[in-house]
Amino acid sequence: MGPATELPLRCATPLEWARAVLREPVALLNDHALLEKKAALNALELLDRWPEPHPPQYWVERMTAIAREEIEHLALVTRLIARRGGRYCKQHRNPYAQALRALVRVGHGKQETMDRLMVSALIEARSCERFELLARCCEDAEVARLYRDLWASEKGHYLTFIDLARQMLADDGAVDRRWDEMLAAEAGIIAAQPPGPRIHSGPCGIGFEPAPRAPGRRQS
Amino acid sequence: MGPATELPLRCATPLEWARAVLREPVALLNDHALLEKKAALNALELLDRWPEPHPPQYWVERMTAIAREEIEHLALVTRLIARRGGRYCKQHRNPYAQALRALVRVGHGKQETMDRLMVSALIEARSCERFELLARCCEDAEVARLYRDLWASEKGHYLTFIDLARQMLADDGAVDRRWDEMLAAEAGIIAAQPPGPRIHSGPCGIGFEPAPRAPGRRQS
Repeated sequence: MGPATELPLRCATPLEWARAVLREPVALLNDHALLEKKAALNALELLDRWPEPHPPQYWVERMTAIAREEIEHLALVTRLIARRGGRYCKQHRNPYAQALRALVRVGHGKQETMDRLMVSALIEARSCERFELLARCCEDAEVARLYRDLWASEKGHYLTFIDLARQMLADDGAVDRRWDEMLAAEAGIIAAQPPGPRIHSGPCGIGFEPAPRAPGRRQS
Repeated sequence: MGPATELPLRCATPLEWARAVLREPVALLNDHALLEKKAALNALELLDRWPEPHPPQYWVERMTAIAREEIEHLALVTRLIARRGGRYCKQHRNPYAQALRALVRVGHGKQETMDRLMVSALIEARSCERFELLARCCEDAEVARLYRDLWASEKGHYLTFIDLARQMLADDGAVDRRWDEMLAAEAGIIAAQPPGPRIHSGPCGIGFEPAPRAPGRRQS
């Protein structure tokens, strides 16, 4: 497991966040299960959006692999909830993902697809950062192992999404500028989230730190 | 692989249907890929509809298993399309599934969920019947093996959906009556489909045979 600085994120979550959310481990797992379900749905929704006239096969392989893995994680997480005496609950609010999705330029063809891929990449990258913190702090060995395993998987998904996003436009400069805007927006959105036992919750009054990278540097 | 009569369907597809649709094997595989994608989405949509106050775990295990398998089939089928020089295409019309979904009593709580499970069971059962015919007629050994393997998997999905549907209402008589209506409707809907290289296409002017079971008998 590598440090969070391998990720492009513009603000770093403090370890105190993980200690706070792990006080309600089953609620946190339930939020996590719902995120895995949404991630699987997202990959299936993206399946038919490969950039014509490219052949679809590479794209389809990536999206089906991501969808399958997210569903496997969903099954794992719901099993852990049941084994800890909890019950998977369907209620879910995820204002973090909603705020990111509002950045997508709907109806703009390849730019819309690129935005959706970048939003997907950001969600995976932030989840990845948080799993790393959770793995370090979690005292339930089985759950800690899950967080550690998911770290690698979600990082692979982040890299796939950003790689596909970079292939959407011929103009590398336009891609870099959009990714820069998206990274800045994400830092503001995550910092504004309310606290609570959720993977994408806010800083619990602790405050985020600026990530240890110089802004403006190419970060994927 | 067992005979089609192990399925509850009220009309049997003739072997001539398989010979006709296999004249366009790549178009047939493409239709099939899109069905697998829709089946995965359907299982994920059903995920949060377990019958309260039952615990969700059994239901969630079944739906995640089905979704994962459908995505694996989707990946297999798109790979076969590419290996045969074809390209996965996103266009899709499936008037068969649309007509079945129109039978669902939307907004009726457990009855809606039961209807959705029965529609899912019917689609799986009909696909299963057709894979058996395709496996018998297909001269491409690799594709024939795929159809044979999917037969068992789709039959398992059919049995899961109908088993869950039967658990939705305490009144077994009401469940049996609804299933009887659904089976009769499906027989009319499949017989009315236009011909073409699709898994759920109509009889190509050949005509369907009544299935060799007495109507009215409990058939799951």
